[in-house]
Amino acid sequence: MWQLYQFPLCPFSRKVRLLLGEKGVGYELVRESPWQRRDEFLDMNPAGQTPVMADPDKNLLLVDSMAICEYFEETVEKSSMISGTAANRAEIRRLVSWFDTQFYGDIVAPLLHERMIKRLVHRAAPDAKMLREAMKAALQHLDYTDYLLDHRHWLGGATMTLADLAAAAQISVADYLGGIDWKGHEATAGWYRGFKSRPSFQPLLAERMEVISPPAHYAVHDF
Amino acid sequence: MWQLYQFPLCPFSRKVRLLLGEKGVGYELVRESPWQRRDEFLDMNPAGQTPVMADPDKNLLLVDSMAICEYFEETVEKSSMISGTAANRAEIRRLVSWFDTQFYGDIVAPLLHERMIKRLVHRAAPDAKMLREAMKAALQHLDYTDYLLDHRHWLGGATMTLADLAAAAQISVADYLGGIDWKGHEATAGWYRGFKSRPSFQPLLAERMEVISPPAHYAVHDF
Repeated sequence: MWQLYQFPLCPFSRKVRLLLGEKGVGYELVRESPWQRRDEFLDMNPAGQTPVMADPDKNLLLVDSMAICEYFEETVEKSSMISGTAANRAEIRRLVSWFDTQFYGDIVAPLLHERMIKRLVHRAAPDAKMLREAMKAALQHLDYTDYLLDHRHWLGGATMTLADLAAAAQISVADYLGGIDWKGHEATAGWYRGFKSRPSFQPLLAERMEVISPPAHYAVHDF
Repeated sequence: MWQLYQFPLCPFSRKVRLLLGEKGVGYELVRESPWQRRDEFLDMNPAGQTPVMADPDKNLLLVDSMAICEYFEETVEKSSMISGTAANRAEIRRLVSWFDTQFYGDIVAPLLHERMIKRLVHRAAPDAKMLREAMKAALQHLDYTDYLLDHRHWLGGATMTLADLAAAAQISVADYLGGIDWKGHEATAGWYRGFKSRPSFQPLLAERMEVISPPAHYAVHDF
């Protein structure tokens, strides 16, 4: 059985979990807090980051969220999430990188630092200026997803792809941490509403990170 | 004909150029300085980063270095660089991500900022402490590549893969900027020496970034 090392608010682990859910791959969760830099975890992944997947029976170890997604895309035929022509697939991968790097760097990383790491590790209050900047960046990013959804049925094209899973993963963590103001972003809100009703998303919405509560609308389907 | 938007010290463009060289794909270089945030370039890539590849005749636009590499891996059979079993391919992609994220973040990004951006944009001197920290990080990273090469013929396994190209791309920029002390890292130095003699590497070694000179050993094959 696959084991997935993660913590509830890791957006990269959420992307992998959405993919595994859509493909119907079973796994068990192993809680890992990468900021503790546990020796046994660093032995598995010298980069010290979640997610990591291990199948001890088969002596398999998968590290890096994109390498993990490509692995299951190659080995599990059901629900292809990097689909279409080579140019379509390049566009899907561009968007995954956009959400994993730009959206994460501008919004999710500062929110996690201010609202989670400072609370759990430094016992310090969040910096209001940093929070404001992350929320402002979120508005610009939602303008971009609105723009994409004005031209396409899903973010990466005509069908649901890994671009949607990567976006939903990042947005859901930002939303949990109170970083998303949904007013005026109807296209993205409509897309996200549909996403929230998918079976693959239910386990994520039900989970809570200790001592950090999400806003009331977080797990509501019709927010 | 493909056009590759890049600047001489962009490590991600170098990775793509090494791949195109190994696969025998022709392209012309278009000089882009992403720190100038040119409007026409931001229209092609809202992330504002090199490399971008365009084929105007075929109306194709490829953005993000990994998406570009996967595209040519899928469309050009010659010299497969993400090869082997699904597990082998996952290990290759893990290492590409390691060099693109960890090696770049710890070493190449601070060197580029201190030695290139400060000179070209801010007209300021580099911060000696930042340079020392990047060079110290480089020693630890070369310990890791030494370790990998003690167990494998190439970084990603038995054959040359995209992991080697990603590593050589990052290391070559760090070396150009004087960030690499080769003493005591014989395994990695031997691997890099072999790499420097490949035809795909020659155009990169011959190029110079304006106003920034590399150390004397940079382009020497037997350094």
